[in-house]
Amino acid sequence: MKKLIFLIIAFSSIIGFSQTSNLNLMPWPKEITTGSEQFIIEPNFIISLNNQSTKRVEVATTKFLRRLSNKTGVFIEEGFAFESGELDNISLSISFERVGKLELNEDESYKLQISKNKISINATTDIGVVYALETLFQLVINNDNFYFFPEVIIIDSPRFAWRGLMMDVSRHFMPIDVIKRNLDALAFVKMNVFHWHLADDQGFRIESKTHPKLHELGSDGLYYTQEQIKDVVQYASDRGIRVVPEVDVPGHATAILTAYPEISSKDEIYSIERYSGIFDPTLDPTNEETYKILDDLFGEMAELFPDKYFHIGGDENEGKHWDENEEIQLFMKENNLKDNHELQTYLNIRIEKILLSYGKSLMGWEEIMTPQMPETALIHSWRGVNEGLTPGQSLVDAAQNGYKVILSNGYYIDLMQPTKDHYSVDPMPEGTNLSSLEESRILGGEATMWSELVTPLTIDSRIWPRTAAIAERFWSQKEINEVEEMYKRLEVINNTLEQIGLTHIKNKAGILRNISNYQSIEVLDELSKISEPFKIYSRNSGGTEYKTYSPFTLFADACTADAIDAHRFNNLIANYVSTGDIETKNEIMVFLKSWGRIYAELSSLSQNAPLILRILPYSGRVSELSNLLYSGMEKNELLKKEFDEIQKLLNAKEEASLNLDVELAVINSLNVLAEFLKKN
Amino acid sequence: MKKLIFLIIAFSSIIGFSQTSNLNLMPWPKEITTGSEQFIIEPNFIISLNNQSTKRVEVATTKFLRRLSNKTGVFIEEGFAFESGELDNISLSISFERVGKLELNEDESYKLQISKNKISINATTDIGVVYALETLFQLVINNDNFYFFPEVIIIDSPRFAWRGLMMDVSRHFMPIDVIKRNLDALAFVKMNVFHWHLADDQGFRIESKTHPKLHELGSDGLYYTQEQIKDVVQYASDRGIRVVPEVDVPGHATAILTAYPEISSKDEIYSIERYSGIFDPTLDPTNEETYKILDDLFGEMAELFPDKYFHIGGDENEGKHWDENEEIQLFMKENNLKDNHELQTYLNIRIEKILLSYGKSLMGWEEIMTPQMPETALIHSWRGVNEGLTPGQSLVDAAQNGYKVILSNGYYIDLMQPTKDHYSVDPMPEGTNLSSLEESRILGGEATMWSELVTPLTIDSRIWPRTAAIAERFWSQKEINEVEEMYKRLEVINNTLEQIGLTHIKNKAGILRNISNYQSIEVLDELSKISEPFKIYSRNSGGTEYKTYSPFTLFADACTADAIDAHRFNNLIANYVSTGDIETKNEIMVFLKSWGRIYAELSSLSQNAPLILRILPYSGRVSELSNLLYSGMEKNELLKKEFDEIQKLLNAKEEASLNLDVELAVINSLNVLAEFLKKN
Repeated sequence: MKKLIFLIIAFSSIIGFSQTSNLNLMPWPKEITTGSEQFIIEPNFIISLNNQSTKRVEVATTKFLRRLSNKTGVFIEEGFAFESGELDNISLSISFERVGKLELNEDESYKLQISKNKISINATTDIGVVYALETLFQLVINNDNFYFFPEVIIIDSPRFAWRGLMMDVSRHFMPIDVIKRNLDALAFVKMNVFHWHLADDQGFRIESKTHPKLHELGSDGLYYTQEQIKDVVQYASDRGIRVVPEVDVPGHATAILTAYPEISSKDEIYSIERYSGIFDPTLDPTNEETYKILDDLFGEMAELFPDKYFHIGGDENEGKHWDENEEIQLFMKENNLKDNHELQTYLNIRIEKILLSYGKSLMGWEEIMTPQMPETALIHSWRGVNEGLTPGQSLVDAAQNGYKVILSNGYYIDLMQPTKDHYSVDPMPEGTNLSSLEESRILGGEATMWSELVTPLTIDSRIWPRTAAIAERFWSQKEINEVEEMYKRLEVINNTLEQIGLTHIKNKAGILRNISNYQSIEVLDELSKISEPFKIYSRNSGGTEYKTYSPFTLFADACTADAIDAHRFNNLIANYVSTGDIETKNEIMVFLKSWGRIYAELSSLSQNAPLILRILPYSGRVSELSNLLYSGMEKNELLKKEFDEIQKLLNAKEEASLNLDVELAVINSLNVLAEFLKKN
Repeated sequence: MKKLIFLIIAFSSIIGFSQTSNLNLMPWPKEITTGSEQFIIEPNFIISLNNQSTKRVEVATTKFLRRLSNKTGVFIEEGFAFESGELDNISLSISFERVGKLELNEDESYKLQISKNKISINATTDIGVVYALETLFQLVINNDNFYFFPEVIIIDSPRFAWRGLMMDVSRHFMPIDVIKRNLDALAFVKMNVFHWHLADDQGFRIESKTHPKLHELGSDGLYYTQEQIKDVVQYASDRGIRVVPEVDVPGHATAILTAYPEISSKDEIYSIERYSGIFDPTLDPTNEETYKILDDLFGEMAELFPDKYFHIGGDENEGKHWDENEEIQLFMKENNLKDNHELQTYLNIRIEKILLSYGKSLMGWEEIMTPQMPETALIHSWRGVNEGLTPGQSLVDAAQNGYKVILSNGYYIDLMQPTKDHYSVDPMPEGTNLSSLEESRILGGEATMWSELVTPLTIDSRIWPRTAAIAERFWSQKEINEVEEMYKRLEVINNTLEQIGLTHIKNKAGILRNISNYQSIEVLDELSKISEPFKIYSRNSGGTEYKTYSPFTLFADACTADAIDAHRFNNLIANYVSTGDIETKNEIMVFLKSWGRIYAELSSLSQNAPLILRILPYSGRVSELSNLLYSGMEKNELLKKEFDEIQKLLNAKEEASLNLDVELAVINSLNVLAEFLKKN
């Protein structure tokens, strides 16, 4: 905890702090000072507002009281906040000055003070109150007798103004309850933008009253009605969250063209895409009907989405159908458009005018940043190593070219990378020569949840808990970056996320029960704790394996990034090979012994569970490796023959995990251990 | 399985059947014949419709394909049914004649035939197709290698036309996703009525456009918009389910009077009720404004709910405020209304006319059945032993008095009784002299889920799986009534209910994690398997303990009726004391030994989990009893001192479970075992 205490010193001018090691706040606040008193949570807990309430504060205080009661089991007498400061025995008094506006750079700050008998929240806006209550709930801790709030003074405000999550509801539709529980979680970690990716090749998800074929033919019946969208926008607003809609054009538009093939760039029959990947269907930028439909649609959407920004996608258009279309080629020539980039910019500029007529500002993925693109556009930087480019280069370019910009490269949570990979990416690039004006154009970032491989059953486990660490990167000071400390807090935050309604923990057990055909899931669970789904794009490589309606109820879907026992085991191995500590050795052997029995137990279960059959080869490798290494540890050496056998098993991964789509997350540590025992 | 096979003989005229013991159908079909072939579920599974599709069939086939794929892990190539019978290699061909109407006595029959390479469904209506697909999904079984459908011929139709679940969304509001997943489950067990109890003292849950204060002031913001109601009605219709709305009047009306005190019977300030019980606030039947508001409201609702029937409650009005109101007394005198029953009937008859003007028929709880009540009303029989009356008497009375009637007495699932208690109640009474005309007036029944003690987190575990057995009582032949056979099938159905989206299993684990403060839940889970929540009205006795916003995240909320290990243990004890079988003895001792350690382990966990403290006294009693009986079994006798100590512990239950609201479901068996060992 040394590092953490150092950080507190670094960011707090107040002295007298102590014991922060049991606080599991995420994002970590700007300034925190702790004392030694406890505010005990009891039935007479009363919330009072020192000025009139707002819808936002009413929702936040009621939600806070329910959560507090549900978590602690305390039968709190008063179920709602009082809109008066005149009461006796007030537990929590809340003051704020005004209703917060959902716009960039609104005041989101708050001060939270807890003493033995009294808690106070002070904020400029009711959005600050929402965040203060989230912090307060995160502060609930316990001793052996009761739950309490620790004495603390917190002064807090965000580092970046744009702290978002993008959710793709096209590739897999997400019902309203999925959206709402994730909005709750966003507020919980002080994120303030929900970027709703509503239309792509695999589905158009908005009810359109002007062009109803869009949802009727483009969605398989899976779309949001306008009433539902309004409800979500209000729900988000109550939590201080802006909603930025995205309709991806001119590429990623198969669903739109399924409804309106007359605005396509190629005369063919379109149908909703069932696979993942990059496809050719593209809107025709030379067709006036294209703009007519978009104008009508964006006009409807402008009424539904009050936010200033409107995301038009613009990514991954390769323009193949433009090249093939003679009329489009003629149009380009006549209009002096040199290449497809310029044609797309022509479209973007026309769309920007449409959006402007509805009072909206255009934003788009980084491909829209062409020389002709006006500086009023907001650039969404996303490409990097996976696309053969320098990560974050477009971010720097955009800031230097005068654009406002946000970063998503490094925050692609669909790629199933460990939390630390995302946590180490800062939206503010280092080692560049950005001026402070240029730096001020970098507004923040967004985690991106692309949904090729997730369903309502699994999406929470892909977004959470990793996005909490990304939220900390966006909210907290840059120097809050110690990885193991983050993981320690994240483990508790992960549990609290379940307490506020997320399904990531419980749905995993459900998937394992299905796999085991409702026999015991203990061994499957154990195996899942050292197994991680294939990362980057390797699970869906080639874009041909999974369809949108393939089963995502497989072992890989139960596994998550940062497999928990792998994390522990890898630390043990690192410690053991450097210290030879005997207690560490014993802990390692407990793991190996337990893993050694997995194969036999799964074999037995597989007699009545066909889905376990697919896991047997992989589990066999795990158990064989574990047994060999266990016996090696017992005798403190590995014979050449044994070592070679281990190497063979370690290298057999491609074959053994074929079609299982998971990798063994302790494989490097097992290799290190083998090398260590070989040397002995 | 002898009994079961006997039943099949009884209801099937087809010969050649075999092996039904592995079929876990519920409700059990009318006729079933099985063969020995297997239809293996493979990627090339194709559904074809022999005539045009309907929305209902489209939804049902798509849902079926997803469920099949998710359960079996098979990557089914085609995600949707084909609307043509011309394809090669059809796996499942579906034929029906017409769209089913959502009205009483519609044809719900179907025939399902599975052979080695071909499945066919034939039905008169598309509702029959929905049921056939539910049966087909329940038929999925497996060997050690794959999932398959067994060869079978099923000819099926219901015994009763009205097979319902009532859900109270007033005492605890249930969001749309809760409603929808329960509608899925209703279809899964072939129930066809969702009775939506929308207004009571604790909340008015419908958006009213004519009288918006109803939802604005009467719901804490927790209500269904008219769009959401339309969506639910459509969702139900797609599953062959009628939606019958209820607005409870003139009693149970505190929420209405919170919005419109001017139509109350007493001049006072009303506010939404937070407790459970029977309260005095009552509409004023002598006030014309009362009928004006109800007319407007019912007019709105008549448009939202297409069903013929409209439930007006009418229960538990004690008329105290009528007695106290001089003007009302005067009105009664002037109108020759002798008592409160006649005054209520005056109201009911006026309401019936209002409903009739909107094309609706009135139904109400049995209290509406007064001599003046027209025979057009449908009577909902509910009272019995708990109300000091003969169970089902009102059912017989209603049928004899010329009313159509449905039964809920015996199906009060909120009372947490074991499944067998409900399973043994038949809607058709025995030992009465009802004529066949009178019998024909008994339409069926409804399970009732009153929500004083349930929340969205726990409601599934209160409705399911018990309602599946009630559904069987309503659908299947009367003679399908063997209790242990029912429990055996119910265990599998319980798991399948999770596979189709119910949360009863996974949410239990979530509650236990919260109690354990995210330490291990193994021991808590073990204890929960022999603990049942207080039954009948003892948990909420006096109506003063729980408020609507009390925490329902306690140990009692994790426990369910029919505690699973208790069921097993009780059977073991019954067997042991009659046979003395040594293997049974060993199984008993395994249970006792394990329970004996619960207290110590919970004590240890309680060091970091304040909520476990409340469970310690109870668990201490369980462990002490178990240890005493274990040692008694070891030495095959109990000393007088030990026996007395056991008796003391068995009788200490009131004290030990105080505030925990659970009872030890093996207590009788422990007593039997003690007596048995004492005799030895």
